[in-house]
Amino acid sequence: MYEYVKNDEILSQLVKNSVLTEKQLATYMAYQFRKYRTENSEIYTRLGEKVSKGVFHRTLQQARRNIKRSILTIILLGYLDITDVTDVTRDITDLIEVGRQIKNIKDLALGQEINDFDKKKALELLSDILRRLDKAIK
Amino acid sequence: MYEYVKNDEILSQLVKNSVLTEKQLATYMAYQFRKYRTENSEIYTRLGEKVSKGVFHRTLQQARRNIKRSILTIILLGYLDITDVTDVTRDITDLIEVGRQIKNIKDLALGQEINDFDKKKALELLSDILRRLDKAIK
Repeated sequence: MYEYVKNDEILSQLVKNSVLTEKQLATYMAYQFRKYRTENSEIYTRLGEKVSKGVFHRTLQQARRNIKRSILTIILLGYLDITDVTDVTRDITDLIEVGRQIKNIKDLALGQEINDFDKKKALELLSDILRRLDKAIK
Repeated sequence: MYEYVKNDEILSQLVKNSVLTEKQLATYMAYQFRKYRTENSEIYTRLGEKVSKGVFHRTLQQARRNIKRSILTIILLGYLDITDVTDVTRDITDLIEVGRQIKNIKDLALGQEINDFDKKKALELLSDILRRLDKAIK
C-alpha cells in the first residue's frame, strides 16, 4: 500500500471503492501536482516510487481512461433512465464540499495533519453515501 | 454484440466507453425492467439470452459494483480536487435531458424507432462530451 493512502482513511476507502488502482491514482496525482520528474532526469517518480518514463505514461493513460469510463457510465445510466442519479449527484456535491472544507486536502501526499472534526465528518458522510448507493443501485 | 446495442448507435458508444460490459448492462437492464424471468421458470433471460439463475445474479452483482465504483471515482476526484468535475456534471445533466427527450428510450430493447432529429442531436452532444472529456482529464 502506498504511504499516501495508508495515511488517509477517507482516501483509502475511496480508492478501494473506485475504478482506479492505487498505482494509477498515485501516477495521476503526481502528474496533476507536477511532482513526477526532477529537472533533466529521465527517472520519473510517482509519490516516492521510481519508474521509467514509459511505465509512468502507460499508467497515466490507464488512469485517464478509467476516469473517463466512470463519467460515461453515469451518462449511460441517465440515458437509459434506469437509475435515478439525481440523488447521487447531490451527494457528490456534498462530498466535494466537505472535501474542500478539509483545508490540507491537496497536501495529503506531504503528510500534513487533518483537522479531526472535519475528518470525522467526512468519514461519516462517506459511509452514509456508500450505504445510500447500496440502496439506490438496485 | 447484443441486438439492443447494435440497434442504437448512441447506446453502443456509451457502453463501449463505460466500465460496464455489454453482458453486464444487458443483465442490469433486464433486472430494472423486470424482464428477466417468466413466471414459475428457473430459466433467466437477459435481453434474449438464456442463462442460469446463478450466472444472472453474478453478472448483476458485477454490474452494480462497477456502477458504484464509477460514482465513487468521481467523488474521489472531487475529494482530491485535482479534476474540475463541475463542467462534466453540467454535461451529464445535458445528456440526461436529451436522453429524456428521446421518447422511446426505455423501449430500446423492444426495437422501436427513434426520432432521427433527436438521435442526431444526442449523437452530436455525445461526441462533444467525449471531446471535452479528453481535454478536461489531463
